Amino acid sequence: MIRAGIVGATGYAGAELCRLLYAHPEVEIAAVSSVSFEGQALSDVYPAYRGFLDLICGNQEEVVEKSDVIFAALPHGLSQELAAQCIEKNKVFIDLGADFRLENEEDYKEWYGGTYLDKSLHAQAVYAMPELFREQIKGKKLIANPGCYTTGAPLALAPAVKGGLVEPQGIIVDSKSGATGAGRGLSQTTHFTELDGAFHPYKVACHRHTPEIEQTLSHLAGKPVRITFVPHLLPVDRGIISTCYARIMPGVTKEQIRQAYEDFYKDETFIRLLPDGKVADIKAVKYTNLCDISLHVDTRTGTLVAVSALDNMVKGAAGQAIQNMNIVFGLPEETGLKLVPPAF
Amino acid sequence: MIRAGIVGATGYAGAELCRLLYAHPEVEIAAVSSVSFEGQALSDVYPAYRGFLDLICGNQEEVVEKSDVIFAALPHGLSQELAAQCIEKNKVFIDLGADFRLENEEDYKEWYGGTYLDKSLHAQAVYAMPELFREQIKGKKLIANPGCYTTGAPLALAPAVKGGLVEPQGIIVDSKSGATGAGRGLSQTTHFTELDGAFHPYKVACHRHTPEIEQTLSHLAGKPVRITFVPHLLPVDRGIISTCYARIMPGVTKEQIRQAYEDFYKDETFIRLLPDGKVADIKAVKYTNLCDISLHVDTRTGTLVAVSALDNMVKGAAGQAIQNMNIVFGLPEETGLKLVPPAF
Amino acid sequence: MIRAGIVGATGYAGAELCRLLYAHPEVEIAAVSSVSFEGQALSDVYPAYRGFLDLICGNQEEVVEKSDVIFAALPHGLSQELAAQCIEKNKVFIDLGADFRLENEEDYKEWYGGTYLDKSLHAQAVYAMPELFREQIKGKKLIANPGCYTTGAPLALAPAVKGGLVEPQGIIVDSKSGATGAGRGLSQTTHFTELDGAFHPYKVACHRHTPEIEQTLSHLAGKPVRITFVPHLLPVDRGIISTCYARIMPGVTKEQIRQAYEDFYKDETFIRLLPDGKVADIKAVKYTNLCDISLHVDTRTGTLVAVSALDNMVKGAAGQAIQNMNIVFGLPEETGLKLVPPAF
Amino acid sequence: MIRAGIVGATGYAGAELCRLLYAHPEVEIAAVSSVSFEGQALSDVYPAYRGFLDLICGNQEEVVEKSDVIFAALPHGLSQELAAQCIEKNKVFIDLGADFRLENEEDYKEWYGGTYLDKSLHAQAVYAMPELFREQIKGKKLIANPGCYTTGAPLALAPAVKGGLVEPQGIIVDSKSGATGAGRGLSQTTHFTELDGAFHPYKVACHRHTPEIEQTLSHLAGKPVRITFVPHLLPVDRGIISTCYARIMPGVTKEQIRQAYEDFYKDETFIRLLPDGKVADIKAVKYTNLCDISLHVDTRTGTLVAVSALDNMVKGAAGQAIQNMNIVFGLPEETGLKLVPPAF
Repeated sequence: MIRAGIVGATGYAGAELCRLLYAHPEVEIAAVSSVSFEGQALSDVYPAYRGFLDLICGNQEEVVEKSDVIFAALPHGLSQELAAQCIEKNKVFIDLGADFRLENEEDYKEWYGGTYLDKSLHAQAVYAMPELFREQIKGKKLIANPGCYTTGAPLALAPAVKGGLVEPQGIIVDSKSGATGAGRGLSQTTHFTELDGAFHPYKVACHRHTPEIEQTLSHLAGKPVRITFVPHLLPVDRGIISTCYARIMPGVTKEQIRQAYEDFYKDETFIRLLPDGKVADIKAVKYTNLCDISLHVDTRTGTLVAVSALDNMVKGAAGQAIQNMNIVFGLPEETGLKLVPPAF
Repeated sequence: MIRAGIVGATGYAGAELCRLLYAHPEVEIAAVSSVSFEGQALSDVYPAYRGFLDLICGNQEEVVEKSDVIFAALPHGLSQELAAQCIEKNKVFIDLGADFRLENEEDYKEWYGGTYLDKSLHAQAVYAMPELFREQIKGKKLIANPGCYTTGAPLALAPAVKGGLVEPQGIIVDSKSGATGAGRGLSQTTHFTELDGAFHPYKVACHRHTPEIEQTLSHLAGKPVRITFVPHLLPVDRGIISTCYARIMPGVTKEQIRQAYEDFYKDETFIRLLPDGKVADIKAVKYTNLCDISLHVDTRTGTLVAVSALDNMVKGAAGQAIQNMNIVFGLPEETGLKLVPPAF
Repeated sequence: MIRAGIVGATGYAGAELCRLLYAHPEVEIAAVSSVSFEGQALSDVYPAYRGFLDLICGNQEEVVEKSDVIFAALPHGLSQELAAQCIEKNKVFIDLGADFRLENEEDYKEWYGGTYLDKSLHAQAVYAMPELFREQIKGKKLIANPGCYTTGAPLALAPAVKGGLVEPQGIIVDSKSGATGAGRGLSQTTHFTELDGAFHPYKVACHRHTPEIEQTLSHLAGKPVRITFVPHLLPVDRGIISTCYARIMPGVTKEQIRQAYEDFYKDETFIRLLPDGKVADIKAVKYTNLCDISLHVDTRTGTLVAVSALDNMVKGAAGQAIQNMNIVFGLPEETGLKLVPPAF
Repeated sequence: MIRAGIVGATGYAGAELCRLLYAHPEVEIAAVSSVSFEGQALSDVYPAYRGFLDLICGNQEEVVEKSDVIFAALPHGLSQELAAQCIEKNKVFIDLGADFRLENEEDYKEWYGGTYLDKSLHAQAVYAMPELFREQIKGKKLIANPGCYTTGAPLALAPAVKGGLVEPQGIIVDSKSGATGAGRGLSQTTHFTELDGAFHPYKVACHRHTPEIEQTLSHLAGKPVRITFVPHLLPVDRGIISTCYARIMPGVTKEQIRQAYEDFYKDETFIRLLPDGKVADIKAVKYTNLCDISLHVDTRTGTLVAVSALDNMVKGAAGQAIQNMNIVFGLPEETGLKLVPPAF
């Protein structure tokens, strides 16, 4: 059994990790930590977990000590030191935060206002989106797990961008996320009475996930890609739809695009490329590590509309982290993640 | 592997059965049927199931033929003939409908307007609420699986009624159910724009589950019990809260009541008796076979307020049916049902 | 024009008062105050109000000075001193808080932990539920506006209790409220992701509104009444359903009960006594000062089930306060309150 | 008083018209009709309306006979004949359907599959979006009231497109609508349990509102405009957000764009151009005729992101129809429409 530890277990991503790891057949949860709730049972913070996850929240040191793999679900800026400790002790470190995601430190400075404490540490990190960069993840110990928006948009666009089927410039990513994306912290925006029945964009064209999406798309395109990214807040708990718009290159047909997607994703367990005429829906992937993609071509304007749906807490956070753990530990990728989404 | 068949697989209860049975380690789904969608894949009806439950809906005969256990999720009145066929072929028949739940045919006539086609068949049926009647279920082939309201209210009241701690008369059951309880069929009441933001009682003091709850409570009390039962429709998808009111017998203390509940449920996997000061919440049991119970004593008026929360599609339908199957087939009761509820 | 001032304008009750008074043809809003947002525009706190209610939040003194009638929407304990000032200056004072609602100071001590600073002031206060105590409101200057639960339950029960048609003991009030009832303050309970899809009781048999409901029912019954009161939190923004259970006195018929209600409410603008077979629904009264009542008799158990629905922010707070203002100032009671509820 | 009649009064648009006209100080509702509910009271269909709109649904002929202005809220294809009758009798006809919106009959054929029965009748119609084409509406009798999406997107883009500040090609309109937009008719898509927690696009790049939006933008641009239009279904009852993307012309600054919008909308009662840093939200305009617009410039990619929020049932249907009636009858435009949106 792999001994897993979760640092930041009482935030939403941490709590979701605990829930999924509890059911993982090759994992035992060795320890969890929480700064806010140290000394309390996880099931006191989340009563839903009573009888299952009654373990007491300890501190980071205990988690590192007792675990083979450490998942960190911390606010950005807090993972770097912890990662160094873990690597030194030869543990696997999977970071759900943003500290190791951006290759270019300048981007990190600009969008997060932080610096890289140890560049050699960053050199060991891998940006771990399995469907796009699987081979690079194997054998790594420092795993930068992608964010939620930054998973959905690239997966929707990857085959088209990599195949040169769309113009790499002028791409629009219009995303809509459920409220768990904003975390457990209280705010007026996510107060029930203000979010229920509401819907609005936020951080328009200035959200921190922009450079991360661009980094991935640039790798796929083989040249710099700039996007316009606009997230919106949905009055639902989970799920992200990313509606992505790209101009189709002259001469490229609808059929070629579809074929490219089918080829690209044909062996992927967690990608469901929907048949023509169907649309991706967050409800159809809820509580699972799936990413549904629907393809639409606007022949009137020569625009590809690629839509992805995923559960931001699973494929957009905890589930993908476990998928990465499975890769690192040589387990079948779907271990513990073969979940049928509830239909209602 | 137990070969399981589901008749009425495209209704909500049937579809939930398929989802849960898919993940059951000792079961393979042998066949499913649907009158409305015969010839179509289950995943065409429920796109969430794509890639998991793509089996084609056939007819009842195929299901009976191919299965060791047949689950029937049919409108009332349609199970009796099917049950007879299954019993004749020595199959296990688990009925999620109401046809075999009421011992007294007069009640069935009065509340459902039907008759018992074969009284000897009814004599073989067992009313299968495991926490209350476990021993009677073992070895049976004709299983009457309780309804949703009729599970939550008795579980909330059982220890008090059985122990003679409350007056058997004057009991009030005020229940609130999510919209899946109304099924997949369309109606103005469950049209999104009319239910969203709405809340109201329905079938006040005349709901069909009344005699079934009374039957269970009467067995527990050892004398006839009459209740006032008022269900309400919640603008949520899943979950039932039953807030039950009973007058405490003179001299009975709060501590005695709590002790009675603790004794009664101490070995039950699926019952979580919450500590004093906590309240049962539908969200904490969602997608699981759990029933949470919170106890409250109004010392000012001598009233017990016992509150239960369950997921109407799982403990109130498909999950309890699988729990019953496990009992009948001699499996550990929680097989395939050890599910951690999501906290958000 | 009546010059109205609102103290505590940025809480939910205060903000709703502003919205309704803005549309009142005989009122001009003279001043508003807020401790938290002094110096800011009301429409900065509530962007929905932009262009309508852009007035700047001042302090209490300004509000008292500039207004003929002062509405106070403050946490309990903060109204008594303000009331004294207003009465001294011969202003009308309408308190949406609880400081003047309970006639018996002992109840106030027990349930709110406070004392009455000036008993002579309390002697001038009137408990202002127009449908029950209209005549006593006229000519008064110190108006104790009832709370939300404490409006719905008594209106559901009044004709039966006053007419001696039900036993005054053993009454159960099972209420369900939308989240605005919990106010604008942030809490984990009303965090969107925790309330969405949730439903649970709270403060079971120990909510502060209990003695206030009992006070009203005792006046109606002419003898002491004790109730068991259990509120629940609905995942909707507005509305309260109170499902009230009372034992019908021997010999009293269903028809007598209905007649009593029809007589009692026949001239009431804001009460809609629904025809037999209909049920009260919070959605049908949303954004209005209406209270819908549906009557149901459980002849099997001799129980009256009376259900009321109201908008907790309007009939349960701001609307009723304006109704009271209209009475005090001699205006037709429905002035500014003749609002058609949206059907969807 | 203007005598108003509503044909198709029991659909959502018709019912909303009735609610708003009831409160209009210069209107009396003379008659309403419904094919499905002829002979029934409007308040039987919509219980929320009890006591206000108890008038009986008659037939079209009665409505035409008794009214000065006839509002038609009918499925497309059914207005043309009725319009002819009204015009012949010298009545004002305001069509909430699509039959008179498209100038080019070819577009109507392609997108609606219908033909124009009488071209001379269409020549009398005016496409009545007051903020864009106010002068052309005055004095007209045949009013084509715009649709919901077709109001929000053009209002968001108008100043930029008219001013030549953005490229007329490559415009993306990503819209999200509440479920009332799908009407009162039942469907699996708008069944509560399937829409709650769901979110998905539909009719991607093939929705009928596409040519209508293009028609408006082409008029503004003075040249043909093609857009990619993707609507999504929100799990809320009311409201549309349209997030519109357009490439900024070389040399045009953020300040120029803002100035153009301020100039364009400076005298408009129903347009709230939000200050920099704010975002349009459907909740802030609910139940009102307002359209909020927020402007955002992505300087990294040279893209204008203009976002509009409106209530699809009011500014997107019934409210705009009344605004048009006010114009035609020479009333101040905001008569009956000066509504403060509830903040919660």
